[in-house]
Amino acid sequence: MEYIKNFNVRNNRNLTMLVDFYELTMANGYLKTDVKDKIAYFDMFFRRVPDGGGYCIMAGIQQLCEYLSSLTFTDYDIDYLREKNLFDDDFLTYLKNFKFECDVWAIPEGNPVFPSEPLVTVRGPIIQAQFVETMILLTVNHQTLIATKASRITRAAKNRPVMEFGSRRAQGYDGAIYGARAAFIGGCSSTACTIADQMFGIPAVGTMAHSWVQLFDSEYDAFKAWTESYPDNCTLLVDTYNTLKSGVPNAIKVFDEVLKPLGKRPSGVRIDSGDITYLSKAVRKMLDESGYSDVKIVASNSLDEYIIRSILDNGACLDVFGVGERLITAKSEPVFGGVYKLVAVEDPKTGEITPKIKISENPEKITNPAFKNIYRIFDKDSNKAIADLLTIRGEEIDFTKPLTLFNPVHTWKKKTLNNYYAKELMVKIFDKGELVYESPEVKDIKEFCKKELDNLWAEVKRFENPHPYYIDLSQNLWNLKQELLMKYSSEFNK
Amino acid sequence: MEYIKNFNVRNNRNLTMLVDFYELTMANGYLKTDVKDKIAYFDMFFRRVPDGGGYCIMAGIQQLCEYLSSLTFTDYDIDYLREKNLFDDDFLTYLKNFKFECDVWAIPEGNPVFPSEPLVTVRGPIIQAQFVETMILLTVNHQTLIATKASRITRAAKNRPVMEFGSRRAQGYDGAIYGARAAFIGGCSSTACTIADQMFGIPAVGTMAHSWVQLFDSEYDAFKAWTESYPDNCTLLVDTYNTLKSGVPNAIKVFDEVLKPLGKRPSGVRIDSGDITYLSKAVRKMLDESGYSDVKIVASNSLDEYIIRSILDNGACLDVFGVGERLITAKSEPVFGGVYKLVAVEDPKTGEITPKIKISENPEKITNPAFKNIYRIFDKDSNKAIADLLTIRGEEIDFTKPLTLFNPVHTWKKKTLNNYYAKELMVKIFDKGELVYESPEVKDIKEFCKKELDNLWAEVKRFENPHPYYIDLSQNLWNLKQELLMKYSSEFNK
Repeated sequence: MEYIKNFNVRNNRNLTMLVDFYELTMANGYLKTDVKDKIAYFDMFFRRVPDGGGYCIMAGIQQLCEYLSSLTFTDYDIDYLREKNLFDDDFLTYLKNFKFECDVWAIPEGNPVFPSEPLVTVRGPIIQAQFVETMILLTVNHQTLIATKASRITRAAKNRPVMEFGSRRAQGYDGAIYGARAAFIGGCSSTACTIADQMFGIPAVGTMAHSWVQLFDSEYDAFKAWTESYPDNCTLLVDTYNTLKSGVPNAIKVFDEVLKPLGKRPSGVRIDSGDITYLSKAVRKMLDESGYSDVKIVASNSLDEYIIRSILDNGACLDVFGVGERLITAKSEPVFGGVYKLVAVEDPKTGEITPKIKISENPEKITNPAFKNIYRIFDKDSNKAIADLLTIRGEEIDFTKPLTLFNPVHTWKKKTLNNYYAKELMVKIFDKGELVYESPEVKDIKEFCKKELDNLWAEVKRFENPHPYYIDLSQNLWNLKQELLMKYSSEFNK
Repeated sequence: MEYIKNFNVRNNRNLTMLVDFYELTMANGYLKTDVKDKIAYFDMFFRRVPDGGGYCIMAGIQQLCEYLSSLTFTDYDIDYLREKNLFDDDFLTYLKNFKFECDVWAIPEGNPVFPSEPLVTVRGPIIQAQFVETMILLTVNHQTLIATKASRITRAAKNRPVMEFGSRRAQGYDGAIYGARAAFIGGCSSTACTIADQMFGIPAVGTMAHSWVQLFDSEYDAFKAWTESYPDNCTLLVDTYNTLKSGVPNAIKVFDEVLKPLGKRPSGVRIDSGDITYLSKAVRKMLDESGYSDVKIVASNSLDEYIIRSILDNGACLDVFGVGERLITAKSEPVFGGVYKLVAVEDPKTGEITPKIKISENPEKITNPAFKNIYRIFDKDSNKAIADLLTIRGEEIDFTKPLTLFNPVHTWKKKTLNNYYAKELMVKIFDKGELVYESPEVKDIKEFCKKELDNLWAEVKRFENPHPYYIDLSQNLWNLKQELLMKYSSEFNK
């Protein structure tokens, strides 16, 4: 896989120590108690879709695989920890000989995902399963956030290409690089971030900045020089001085003088400031009247899904969008609140699995206990996704028979499906610490995402007040959860 | 410098290709024209303080130095670009032999900085000075954003320590690592991000997660095991089941049983959910009544400057804050809008410098032209900063004489200072491509920042409606700007 080669060339980083310090103090603590022998199950999941949306787009698994494959504590790390005078020699020896041994399941990238279902499940020795918390959350939270935002923005653009332009305003280098990757998965057509093209094959695009125009004696000279350099793919930035009085007239003049004699067509003009709706209409008219009705108008000024929708509603004549800071930081809601919670503990001797629940005053924050499986249930005729069904892993559900789903809160709301099929959502990505999953190429993830989004009902994809997608529990899982809640309740409400 | 060693161990990345693609298409274009010989001056500056604040905290220069010192195009980069069929062989050869030759000035990290003044100025061959735009913006925008947010949050905490806890919700790995660095500069006392301690010496802290408590047979057993492991530095997380009915009683029991016989004092208890104000008062009372009035109460649930201020106003009994997602992403305003604009062009033969201005319909977006200097003017008695004065570099201003400052918009607003001193703000960090600046250690930057903030009037530091700090132009610079504006006006309003 070429990207792996490039990854190593470019980003040969050991991020093992990018970990919350408490993972280390806990690990050191576990090693001194019997708890160390327990096998833990953790779920990574989120509770709410950003921006009031109806779905998220899963992303970040390739990077998670790279991280988990390369967990190693160097001598430098061990020395650093020793100097803290907090950690026991046994623990430092344990780290020195560290070998990742967990099983990991994940929902593949590009899938629409929903609140309260596990995106990643880790099973392994408690010390290890706990240790990877920080990087699992960091990796999946970041890329899922940006892929989800990109899905919203590109849907607002209604099939017009959206270029990712945000590197300069990203939150750090990885914010730019992996942000561009996630934006592409979520629907962007290309990126301005060159290294993201090298690493992931996301088409890199870009023409000129205002400084190009300023550096020549006149805007006309600047456009002429550009067009002579790039006659085959010529997009001119027309707003440096005055879009309508100077930029577009100069552009048309240069198209006529330089490209026409060569028999070539210009690609576009770009507007980066001012009243985009008004300007785009005026520019469209000027271009059309000069015989350039095929020339595209590109807009790129602090755009997001709300502004794109609004300017298109107002009849803006735009063909392509460049979206920067509001996409690369998910500005309207820049935090994806994924969490990593203990859901079960296995006795290493008996193999018995004890489900765990995390209680909260806030009912939404109560976890779904147990080592689980997720099935996405589709309508056989329309291929639309109806619900995701969480089950206890190991329980038998006969999907050849009618399936009754019920609302986990309002249990009287039931629905029996006859004409459906079920698809298991999670795949195993690590088996006893060995990577067993090959990440698809990013362009294939993008295509997959597009296809899977088509399988969601329009009601779930609405910007405002989307219909909540159903996340249902199997009867067994529901019973188990109730049982644990009752146990808790009787303990603390004496 | 140890951090450099660590940096190389940890992050030996070539980020040369983390560049907006248009920098490459422009560079290739310049090389074909006479413009290539010009020497360009670019300023990086911002237009508005996030969150309606009165100042920002400069950060990111160390990383900028590392990047500019390591600009190199590998064969792999050249091959990648060749395959685009957009770039000329001359240009690819130029990149192969690329050697950074620019002069760079910057305001050192930790300084309060203000809108419209240059934070970084680059002078060099146009191709090079243009090329570094993306990474200058990305680096300084990100760290300045987080340092500024940290300054707000730590000021709201009124001398109580604030721990940076956000890695898991950061926007990418660098978002976590350099975010922790910037947060420390801006005022945080420590971080949960272990690698940030290794790289920059930011104290890493952390105790236990809820999963520690869940993994033992009871909360009591969990606390006991923890306290036995860490008797010297024991902070217990008390909200896993029920803070007042279970967590704090169990904590006190374990403090009594395990620590008291050893003659040791516990450090604290941490609350991570629920009504923090109410709980903290009740917990304080319980601790005090059990003889633990010295035990600190730590809070850590979706905090930021607004919530911290509010809960302290409401009498919460809190000693330490852990702040996560809202700091590490600057959630309330996650974009720092720094821009990079051409301000002058030098004829390489004559050395003549022609100032440039970028016009905008929006007066705030009009740039300050020319190769400039910045002086911070202090009151001699109070040492408080009065204003920053932008001058044309090279003009003589006699700071031993009374200095008249005037408002650049309302020019009739004047003030003559007699009892003042002036401090040049920018330092040269690269001379003809060579690094000539040694970054201070991060803890020294942090101390410097604290001291410089003390030199700002309280009115400038207010959360709401701060008094705008004065950014004035010298008479010469003001005249020049007016002249360029008039020239523009006469050109486009014919």
